[in-house]
Amino acid sequence: MEKIRIRDDFWDRYTALVRETVIPYQWDALNDRIEDAAPSYAIRNFRIAAGLENGEFGGMVFQDSDLAKWLEAVGYSLASHPDPKLECIADEVIDLVAMAQHENGYINTYFTIKEPGNEWTNLHDCHELYCAGHMMEAAVAYYQGTGKRKLLEVMCKFADHIDTIFGTDEGKLQGYCGHQEIELALVKLFEVTGESRYLKLSQYFIDQRGQEPNYLIAEWERRGRTSYWQEGVTAKPDPRYNQSHLPVREQREAVGHSVRAVYMYTAMADLARLTGDEGLITACRSLWNNVTKKQMYITGGIGSTHHGEAFSFDYDLPNDTIYAETCASIGLIFFAQRMLRLERKSEYADVMERALYNNVIGSMSQDGKHYFYVNPLEVWPEASRNNPGKHHVKSVRQKWFGCSCCPPNVARLLSSLNDYIYLVDQSERTVYVNLYIGSEASFKLSDGGFSIKQQSALPWDGIVSFDIESVPVGSVTLALRLPSWCSGKAELSLNGQPISYEMKDGYAQITNVWQQGDHVEWNLPMQAQWIAAHPFIRANAGKVALQRGPLVYCLEEIDNLSPLSSLSVSPSGKLVELDDRDLLSGAVVIQGEGFASSRADWEEELYRPLSDSNSVKPMNWKAVPYYLWGNRGEGEMSVWLRRAGN
Amino acid sequence: MEKIRIRDDFWDRYTALVRETVIPYQWDALNDRIEDAAPSYAIRNFRIAAGLENGEFGGMVFQDSDLAKWLEAVGYSLASHPDPKLECIADEVIDLVAMAQHENGYINTYFTIKEPGNEWTNLHDCHELYCAGHMMEAAVAYYQGTGKRKLLEVMCKFADHIDTIFGTDEGKLQGYCGHQEIELALVKLFEVTGESRYLKLSQYFIDQRGQEPNYLIAEWERRGRTSYWQEGVTAKPDPRYNQSHLPVREQREAVGHSVRAVYMYTAMADLARLTGDEGLITACRSLWNNVTKKQMYITGGIGSTHHGEAFSFDYDLPNDTIYAETCASIGLIFFAQRMLRLERKSEYADVMERALYNNVIGSMSQDGKHYFYVNPLEVWPEASRNNPGKHHVKSVRQKWFGCSCCPPNVARLLSSLNDYIYLVDQSERTVYVNLYIGSEASFKLSDGGFSIKQQSALPWDGIVSFDIESVPVGSVTLALRLPSWCSGKAELSLNGQPISYEMKDGYAQITNVWQQGDHVEWNLPMQAQWIAAHPFIRANAGKVALQRGPLVYCLEEIDNLSPLSSLSVSPSGKLVELDDRDLLSGAVVIQGEGFASSRADWEEELYRPLSDSNSVKPMNWKAVPYYLWGNRGEGEMSVWLRRAGN
Repeated sequence: MEKIRIRDDFWDRYTALVRETVIPYQWDALNDRIEDAAPSYAIRNFRIAAGLENGEFGGMVFQDSDLAKWLEAVGYSLASHPDPKLECIADEVIDLVAMAQHENGYINTYFTIKEPGNEWTNLHDCHELYCAGHMMEAAVAYYQGTGKRKLLEVMCKFADHIDTIFGTDEGKLQGYCGHQEIELALVKLFEVTGESRYLKLSQYFIDQRGQEPNYLIAEWERRGRTSYWQEGVTAKPDPRYNQSHLPVREQREAVGHSVRAVYMYTAMADLARLTGDEGLITACRSLWNNVTKKQMYITGGIGSTHHGEAFSFDYDLPNDTIYAETCASIGLIFFAQRMLRLERKSEYADVMERALYNNVIGSMSQDGKHYFYVNPLEVWPEASRNNPGKHHVKSVRQKWFGCSCCPPNVARLLSSLNDYIYLVDQSERTVYVNLYIGSEASFKLSDGGFSIKQQSALPWDGIVSFDIESVPVGSVTLALRLPSWCSGKAELSLNGQPISYEMKDGYAQITNVWQQGDHVEWNLPMQAQWIAAHPFIRANAGKVALQRGPLVYCLEEIDNLSPLSSLSVSPSGKLVELDDRDLLSGAVVIQGEGFASSRADWEEELYRPLSDSNSVKPMNWKAVPYYLWGNRGEGEMSVWLRRAGN
Repeated sequence: MEKIRIRDDFWDRYTALVRETVIPYQWDALNDRIEDAAPSYAIRNFRIAAGLENGEFGGMVFQDSDLAKWLEAVGYSLASHPDPKLECIADEVIDLVAMAQHENGYINTYFTIKEPGNEWTNLHDCHELYCAGHMMEAAVAYYQGTGKRKLLEVMCKFADHIDTIFGTDEGKLQGYCGHQEIELALVKLFEVTGESRYLKLSQYFIDQRGQEPNYLIAEWERRGRTSYWQEGVTAKPDPRYNQSHLPVREQREAVGHSVRAVYMYTAMADLARLTGDEGLITACRSLWNNVTKKQMYITGGIGSTHHGEAFSFDYDLPNDTIYAETCASIGLIFFAQRMLRLERKSEYADVMERALYNNVIGSMSQDGKHYFYVNPLEVWPEASRNNPGKHHVKSVRQKWFGCSCCPPNVARLLSSLNDYIYLVDQSERTVYVNLYIGSEASFKLSDGGFSIKQQSALPWDGIVSFDIESVPVGSVTLALRLPSWCSGKAELSLNGQPISYEMKDGYAQITNVWQQGDHVEWNLPMQAQWIAAHPFIRANAGKVALQRGPLVYCLEEIDNLSPLSSLSVSPSGKLVELDDRDLLSGAVVIQGEGFASSRADWEEELYRPLSDSNSVKPMNWKAVPYYLWGNRGEGEMSVWLRRAGN
């Protein structure tokens, strides 16, 4: 067993924000108490389903999952920060969930209130298994955080019920959910209960998906070709949307709704690890490569189009009509974590870090009360308002959403961030360090505990240290990830003496019979660097981005000019890194050299011959970390910047 | 009266194509005889409405207008090229239209077949007045082309009927069409018949539009909030879509569906000229300025978004998600022609020329049988297929469309192109030359005829000459437009002797008591030039376009490389202009210097630090006229090119 607690200048702010602001704020949201925001109805639905209140179902058909994700976040938060008042609220909510449970174990407020008797007839649209999955994840987190089993038992009962409904046995439905989620949740339920039926049920859902004839299409036919989302007869569902177009082992390219995709890949990687299934391992590696080497934004965002919130195709990464949903990046982090559990390669952690430090924390405002659903790399506020093709790209974070999957997803990730820092390989006796986040960690090895205290100056400085606080009898290998942004150079010292190290799969390996009090220093060179994009990415042609450590930077109108596009940057110019304490909660900003095209002499004309009067003037610019954008009013923003030169 | 006949190396090909290919091909299309193309149903609908056939209405609710536009094109074509066989077909069609006319004058095959009794209850969606307008335009053209009055009388009867239905008098509907068109058609009907009721009816439609309460919204309420286009209760119509958001005299910015907009502006300019209404004149000038100085592509395309086929907002001119519908550019040419009639300023003709030589002729394939509906400035075929936000941008011209408004619109414009070359101001005794198209023209002045023969080497060379073939007694001013692409330099000679000239509103004025045999030469310097875009156009930042004479150029993958975006051009480099006889029907191509970013050393990675290995290599490129793009197979295309430098 591991115990890891974050103590970090950068991340303490976030975990405190989640604990003190996000969780209470989202509790208000779930109770429809946020002014001027779309009501959630989540608690009200459960009260109606539990028979405590009369009324109509409100909100999205999958609204139960918002409560589940909130409960999951509470479980994680209570694990690191006990809070009797919050625990009391959560216990009451769990009682409510239990009251809404049917005799047979079934829980879903939509079907209970609005369509009793129609359960499991519209798996394509209605998210019953998805909601079940999220509540299972909550049950596991709450049990692990508090030791309380009530929700776990409620959800095991539901899982048992689902196991009687779905499967290849005669008389069972050979279906699966239109939105993957329960697959990964059942693995968690198996891991915490040891009940192998849950693992097998997860495997069933994964194996069944994409088999012909397609269950979800046949179901649509049986329903009379109707949809929950639209009146009348509807178009045949596209199986690519929910990744049921092929058996999962034959899938090589990421297609369709990006959150559905990465939730599924996460479960596939879990099952690949637990079963050793070579077909699954191959598919996981291929899908990982396709997502991260062909279809991922530099911020760790995925999903290039808002049509179906989906992947589009290789190298199609428009910055302005982007989707890059917050939930999709969180799902990518889950996938990365499971790939790391499957095999220790630093590239998985590199992507995890990229998505976390950029897309994910950038999705939340510094006050913790406003969120982006879509995380653009280029924003022109007027276009977001007036060009319908960009209406989905908001230039200011919103209070809450009608479909509010993202905010509680951020809460549950940030409150469980301690789970992403380390990975222990018991057989190799190796402690892998994947994220450099200050923390106190204890690991049980066969011959004793190994406790280390990590201190990290990231993301502002690259100095990381480890103090060994308790040791087992035998040797332990410390495997320190060499981040991709270091370009292979980092210095290691033990008790003040430089030591050499060997690299294996992206990790510096230091094997030692450790002594209490040993002090390891890992010095990651961190300086602003210009990044080029693959030439196949048309949207970034002639452009460069700025990165420093794990942070991607951007230019904002407020620090520079409008239109931002009139600026070009000189990669050969001097870059000045400044610690700006006054910028929001403090950040390193980067100043550099470039040119601004002059527009003083343009009259009322759209086009004119290029001449000397189209000349440019030198201009200095200032870049801020991407995750901070949009916290100082509305304005233009751009990650990719025109490069002066060829 | 004027008589103008085109005799021009460049345009004869097009007028012959329209006559020999487009008109017969579209006749086949109207009769559902094009294989693998969506059927039109247009003739069949009329046969059913006329009682000659049984069956259901097919196609769009405004399908009648396709036949009308075809008949209009036939009228123009017969005027310049008598063709008894074609005339016979057209006469039979006109008989068919007459047979489909109701006792009271009403004609519309949709309502006759499918919703008898529901006429005029859904002006917002159902295009009855729009179809009437197109058939009126056909009637006028056919009468002018053949002298035959039958269709004219049929349509006057319909106009008379409409006049009894609509107006501000008690008991009349105070409505107007959801798609403007009849307003400009009624002006034509007035001009050919002298019946002032038609002018007043046009004025009524223009004046009524945008008055509160909004008729089209009230009508939607009366219908029970339904729409022709969608089942169930629908969202409230957006009055901006059809420009009924404000009384027309208060409109200053182009909004909504771009074809609706420019058809309306055309009628407004007609009425402004005929009535001298200052409010209309001011609105026309403002709307012209907004469209052409804030919202127009360099190709003369308008409409920045496919959502509502609409204008978006000032300087929002994306090249890849563009709409730039063919019909909208044709409507812009109508608007320009009417503004010229209102006041002689060369800028109107400049825009007319820009739209004609680029967007409009580029919309049709060189074989005359394939068409673009959307005319992009940047195409990546894979994105058109795989990114839903670009599905509307086709990378190859289509045979026909379910909504096939554009192909017959091209046919009617090209077959009436002779009407756009000259404009005679009788009171000023001035002949304005707006387009340089080889032609024979005769104008009647009060003291005799004035005949000139224009010869033009455009668009390949800038030499234009005028031979005076017959003259009136008094002096006549020849006003030769100095195109905007000349940058103010052009040489004029009379009978071989250079002469000076004065400029007025963009025209070189030569007043003379002309002699038969006088020879005027107008030498417009034509060389390839780089064009810059206004810095507010974000999409074109750091880019340049290439123009030579009226032609905008583009780069195609077939002549260069893929991705095209990896190329940058050097505006300071040498440009070589080559007369390439082998390129399709022959064209001047332009070769120049630039750089291509090297991608040989990129591995499986999306992003990497910028380094020397990101270097570029010199590369020569070849540009072809935009109007020829996509005639040599599918590939990438781009008008705006990255500029090497700052």
